Amino acid sequence: MNQRLQAFQQWLQEQHISFAIITSTPNVFYLSGFYSDPHERLLALVVFPNEEPILVCPQMEAGQAKRSGWHYSLIGYSDIENPWELISEHVTKRQPAADRIAVEKTHLSLERYEQLCTYFSARSTINAEEKLRELRMMKDEQEVSILRQAAALADLGVEVGVKAIAEGKTELEIIAAIEYELKKQGVREMSFATMVLTGQKTADPHGTPGLAAIQKGDFVLFDLGVVLDGYCSDITRTVVFGKPSDEQKRIYETVLKAQLAAIAASKPGAAAGTVDQAARQIIEQAGYGSYFTHRVGHGLGIEIHEYPSMNATNAMALEQGMVFTIEPGIYVPSIGGVRIEDDVLITNDGVEILTSYPKELITL
Amino acid sequence: MNQRLQAFQQWLQEQHISFAIITSTPNVFYLSGFYSDPHERLLALVVFPNEEPILVCPQMEAGQAKRSGWHYSLIGYSDIENPWELISEHVTKRQPAADRIAVEKTHLSLERYEQLCTYFSARSTINAEEKLRELRMMKDEQEVSILRQAAALADLGVEVGVKAIAEGKTELEIIAAIEYELKKQGVREMSFATMVLTGQKTADPHGTPGLAAIQKGDFVLFDLGVVLDGYCSDITRTVVFGKPSDEQKRIYETVLKAQLAAIAASKPGAAAGTVDQAARQIIEQAGYGSYFTHRVGHGLGIEIHEYPSMNATNAMALEQGMVFTIEPGIYVPSIGGVRIEDDVLITNDGVEILTSYPKELITL
Repeated sequence: MNQRLQAFQQWLQEQHISFAIITSTPNVFYLSGFYSDPHERLLALVVFPNEEPILVCPQMEAGQAKRSGWHYSLIGYSDIENPWELISEHVTKRQPAADRIAVEKTHLSLERYEQLCTYFSARSTINAEEKLRELRMMKDEQEVSILRQAAALADLGVEVGVKAIAEGKTELEIIAAIEYELKKQGVREMSFATMVLTGQKTADPHGTPGLAAIQKGDFVLFDLGVVLDGYCSDITRTVVFGKPSDEQKRIYETVLKAQLAAIAASKPGAAAGTVDQAARQIIEQAGYGSYFTHRVGHGLGIEIHEYPSMNATNAMALEQGMVFTIEPGIYVPSIGGVRIEDDVLITNDGVEILTSYPKELITL
Repeated sequence: MNQRLQAFQQWLQEQHISFAIITSTPNVFYLSGFYSDPHERLLALVVFPNEEPILVCPQMEAGQAKRSGWHYSLIGYSDIENPWELISEHVTKRQPAADRIAVEKTHLSLERYEQLCTYFSARSTINAEEKLRELRMMKDEQEVSILRQAAALADLGVEVGVKAIAEGKTELEIIAAIEYELKKQGVREMSFATMVLTGQKTADPHGTPGLAAIQKGDFVLFDLGVVLDGYCSDITRTVVFGKPSDEQKRIYETVLKAQLAAIAASKPGAAAGTVDQAARQIIEQAGYGSYFTHRVGHGLGIEIHEYPSMNATNAMALEQGMVFTIEPGIYVPSIGGVRIEDDVLITNDGVEILTSYPKELITL
């Protein structure tokens, strides 16, 4: 059995859990290697403390599950079968008395929970999400290798976007140019809606791109990433179209200094919160403290937001194998915003920076 | 109060429901006009049988909710508040004894259900999803107007895609060209992952576009749509690159004839199932019955799959205001597949076809 399943089984043993039924696409993918989103149909991985797991999917996906490397039990159900009934039959053989069942509480719907209660009379349901977040936080070599490639494609996205900047071009046109090139490179999916913002819109960390045209003197902010083999990348760069004002330069240099300080603070043993604090201190000293309105970063992997959360109060010690973003920003409503973001991997003595697009202020 | 909320309130009265708590983005949008997806944070619309509704959203979105036209009660909560506690306080004032609570059972997570149980001691939870699907099925003039515009943009997508076909071009390159042009027109989001398939891959109704290059004699299949002001369009066209074989022509003409027959069968009072049957009969008569492996269509609106389901056994009578797709297909593994899809609106005496890209066999 793979190491991920073994580690999860060990937790089930420690917690005296009868079995876990995992139904979210990311967690099933993490534990089984099978990536599938059958929408309203059920996808489930049943994991026991001491038995082989069972994968449950629509019959039409069973072949694909096997081709993806799944060689334990597999229940493929047709549209006229109730998968819960099939699960119940199989599980009862292995685990006749289910007392404690682990599920993903923020993912499992009430409708599915009611099915679970119909077929199993467990005394309690335990949330498996925290444990799975912990396991997924530590990336192995295979995952790091994919994350490096995903980061390189994010670099390419920014490169194409910067080249596409021209007076009068709209935010959506630049996004179109970026995604056109990435699709040509074989990218099927972005890790979130690509963001290109110009002018004062850059002051909104959650701004929506539109038909605003680039004008001389504008900040142009890129925030994008790709999904590669199930893993996400995430990069932000900000450039100036035309000649930057003194204040634009001051904001940019402050963010860059803060971002480099946060990278320098990232190493095994350091508390996650100290990374945020390192960036925040520099931004506060420069007088922009109230304009840095979000945490310095987030873990990255199968999902775009994972553990560790890189907020100022997180006391968790960083460890080799963690991957997260470092993305301080300053957002001044009347002027605009700057954010600089890299993806980093904690190594045995510091960090490897996965994204590599230049960070000196680019003026066009 | 708007007609949608009134109709939903009437159902709450009939069902003797104390209140409904609606938490899915599409249903909150439908009932309130506020479109928001705050991810892990709670968005909720509390609807009472005889009182004004309450909208609940993160504080940072409260301004946007008001700007979108919401002028009833609004609870904006901060990240350090528990929104369920606030909901409980407000609801208890209006409805001290909650006996039956309506929720969306396939959407509400177990974690949220547990919160609901903590703050309310209802005897039962009722599923509101079926009623909301019924209400959303009947489109009003405003919705139809948006759906027409969304369909026109889908037409444009196919037009751009057909023009982009050239020997050696890959599926992903053609998708890139389509989305580039649509983004330039202001489209922010496609209604699903744009599908361009070539050659034998067209024989898979759920095929994944990749780096396959177009070759002479290939079918090229486009299936795409846009999201406009919260509403989806969906179109499929199939063309031949080069000279079609006799069998390719026969398959194409059969699908087209089936599609036109299904459109002719679509009128007020006809059972939804007869539309599927009209197409299926023609495909069966041509000897391709076993290669038409899906229902003829699906309802369309805020979500890409809504009611009515256009499958052969649906006895529901079509009514003016319903919008759905008509998309028969024939998929022959060694040859390829053809699907032709339009979006249609049931009018007072037949249908209005919303998509309008030509349907005669195009050879390039």
